Amino acid sequence: MVSDVGLKDDVATLPTATGTYSHQTALVNRMLDEIGALTRDGEGITRETYGAGEENAIQAIEQYAAELGFAAERDRFQNLWLRLPLDHRTEPPVVIGSHMDSVPQGGNFDGLAGVLAGMLVLDRLRDDPTQAPPLRVLALRAEESAWFGKAYIGSLALLGKLPASALALRHRSGQGTLGEAMQRSGVDVDALARGEALLAPSDIAAYLELHIEQGPVMVARGWPATVVTGIRGNIRHNRVRCLGETGHSGAVPRWLRKDAMLAVADLLSRLDEHWRVLLQMGMDLVMTTGMCSTPARSHAVSVIPGEVEFSFEVRSQSVDTLERFYQLMQEECRAVEKSRGVRFEFDGLIRSEPAAMDPDWIARIETAGQTLGAPIERLPSGAGHDAAVFANAGVPSAMVFVRNEHGSHNVHEAMEVADFMQGVDLLHEALIAR
Amino acid sequence: MVSDVGLKDDVATLPTATGTYSHQTALVNRMLDEIGALTRDGEGITRETYGAGEENAIQAIEQYAAELGFAAERDRFQNLWLRLPLDHRTEPPVVIGSHMDSVPQGGNFDGLAGVLAGMLVLDRLRDDPTQAPPLRVLALRAEESAWFGKAYIGSLALLGKLPASALALRHRSGQGTLGEAMQRSGVDVDALARGEALLAPSDIAAYLELHIEQGPVMVARGWPATVVTGIRGNIRHNRVRCLGETGHSGAVPRWLRKDAMLAVADLLSRLDEHWRVLLQMGMDLVMTTGMCSTPARSHAVSVIPGEVEFSFEVRSQSVDTLERFYQLMQEECRAVEKSRGVRFEFDGLIRSEPAAMDPDWIARIETAGQTLGAPIERLPSGAGHDAAVFANAGVPSAMVFVRNEHGSHNVHEAMEVADFMQGVDLLHEALIAR
Repeated sequence: MVSDVGLKDDVATLPTATGTYSHQTALVNRMLDEIGALTRDGEGITRETYGAGEENAIQAIEQYAAELGFAAERDRFQNLWLRLPLDHRTEPPVVIGSHMDSVPQGGNFDGLAGVLAGMLVLDRLRDDPTQAPPLRVLALRAEESAWFGKAYIGSLALLGKLPASALALRHRSGQGTLGEAMQRSGVDVDALARGEALLAPSDIAAYLELHIEQGPVMVARGWPATVVTGIRGNIRHNRVRCLGETGHSGAVPRWLRKDAMLAVADLLSRLDEHWRVLLQMGMDLVMTTGMCSTPARSHAVSVIPGEVEFSFEVRSQSVDTLERFYQLMQEECRAVEKSRGVRFEFDGLIRSEPAAMDPDWIARIETAGQTLGAPIERLPSGAGHDAAVFANAGVPSAMVFVRNEHGSHNVHEAMEVADFMQGVDLLHEALIAR
Repeated sequence: MVSDVGLKDDVATLPTATGTYSHQTALVNRMLDEIGALTRDGEGITRETYGAGEENAIQAIEQYAAELGFAAERDRFQNLWLRLPLDHRTEPPVVIGSHMDSVPQGGNFDGLAGVLAGMLVLDRLRDDPTQAPPLRVLALRAEESAWFGKAYIGSLALLGKLPASALALRHRSGQGTLGEAMQRSGVDVDALARGEALLAPSDIAAYLELHIEQGPVMVARGWPATVVTGIRGNIRHNRVRCLGETGHSGAVPRWLRKDAMLAVADLLSRLDEHWRVLLQMGMDLVMTTGMCSTPARSHAVSVIPGEVEFSFEVRSQSVDTLERFYQLMQEECRAVEKSRGVRFEFDGLIRSEPAAMDPDWIARIETAGQTLGAPIERLPSGAGHDAAVFANAGVPSAMVFVRNEHGSHNVHEAMEVADFMQGVDLLHEALIAR
């Protein structure tokens, strides 16, 4: 059954290629509805990494591929590849891909939208594949870290970059390992354990990915689709401790206090101000302390906190900005230590490299927007994507974001199919432009 | 057995009245040691409110009173009163008192020191009671809120100010009520439930209390004994919620964030700065956020906190300063709400009135210091004391603090008996001065 959810009345009249391909709106609505129904969990959508939901969704894609006349093939790590059977060119293809898994009780669009986008583009090239470079659609597995505590498992494995040790990662339930789940899904675990790459970076000409935006910028700005400039890397301490001295809240005067809570408040306020200034200087930066607490076992309204634990994360597209802000944080910690008699202790620093999107492909997608009469804006991606794995392996990579309300990783994801179609138009136009 | 703990070699040579009464050092050491041993719990000292430890300690005081030839009598609420049997004057007496109970695993000096101080002063007046106004020593029960969640039970009951509803307060263990514990201790619970006062404020001329300092000021300043100017009141919210909006830490830019953690950090930093300035203007003020946390059920390193809970407490000897600072806090909350798109929600406001100590008695104690050749400083009390109950009932009240390391309510309380003896000297001299 075709659903009208998200179908805007004016789609057919948009001054874009969608006019020609407006029949695809019904197709994509049907695929979204059916795969959504197949993987609904009562609360939201659950497509477990190397589990039942992900497998069911991939089998559905195989059925649609058969209907559409695509050739479908799984690689030895159970990622699914689609192509036009008549396209016999042998040069490295462009790949449009995204992931098939979801977080527990997630939304229907995170991942799946990108795979369906690839299929619609492939469908548009059916009559004359040579309009565009050779194209493959890639339905990746296991992008979400929610299940085994590691992200990008499918794309890392494909490129021979998943460490064998990852096979021992335990499932979030505590029951079973990633290796066991892969084995049950038919993965060639031995090849994976040997670090065998199924794909060299030079085997593909580019990796393109359409994804819903996981932040609120496009809704706030009124942008249906944008091109992504880069994927933010981050520097992170999961646990910083500020150690001061507990004391009676009434009996210790200010000059004898070593209040860990006011010290952390001071630190965060200083960093917040630096952040504000650096943004004005044009840097790409976000800073978050997602967790912060006085010790639950001993804190009290009338006790000066002698200890506060907090997390610290900065994200930026620039390694330089990350390093500079981290140095700033260390300097401010020392200043707060000096002025407030406290001490900061840090757990191991975790770094995740930013990934730059390919300038040529960014330009092609922007030009496509102009050609289609709907100029687009640039946006960084704050969340991670498989595109970062391909880009950091040396594959020219690019992403298109589609407007989406209520963020992702929850049941309230809300992408309009009309916006999605504009994203598909961009990919299609970028591929066929000469 | 007499212990030497805390006994300084130079006590006998101090240029104070202690010279004459240096034999009392051995007595007070013995009493502290024996009552400490009687109420030791393995970790520290436990003298439970209307429980075994408190009762044992009071019985020990009764024995010492008998040895010293004091008349001892319990009132109907089981507080213990001591006096010199030869003193037959009928005018309202001065009372020196403090409490006999302790927190669980507390120290030996909090409360007990004040009762022993009264006994030493009474002992010094034995030969000629008329050197001083008529004197009573009062060993109060149930000052600590740790057991039934309410402080000053003994003194409030005595003055007819304990609400009958307090009898239903449950013990910290969850087992039994205050009323049941009182009944077992022989309290006339019916009189108490009727709100019968055993004492009118006009029945006593003054209430004096010696207590260990529960903060670190006297150690830091090198003061063995001081006079207390007043007991700080407080204004408190046990639970303030700052409500913002959760979001992906990478995908939401600064301008679209409603970060509850940075909002709370901002608020606390603003208030901290106000506090600093108000102190420079000479106000008496301490501010504490003893508890603060992002929600344990949902916070994560990569989630912008949409909610933070924290406590807020200010203490001051001045009602005016409390009110002004509270207004300032409300104004800053509104400013932070405006600039950061968050909202603050407050639980019920709890007020506890400050208590001013009697200026005449403060002056008498200061003069006593000068007479004894050891001028003393003034200090506010940040913690609450029974003296606040008497003062707020209209009884001229005063306190002497004795230096004590490591705060109170823990096993590491460390009062030197030499310092204590200087406190006793002050009380004695203030009483006999004409």
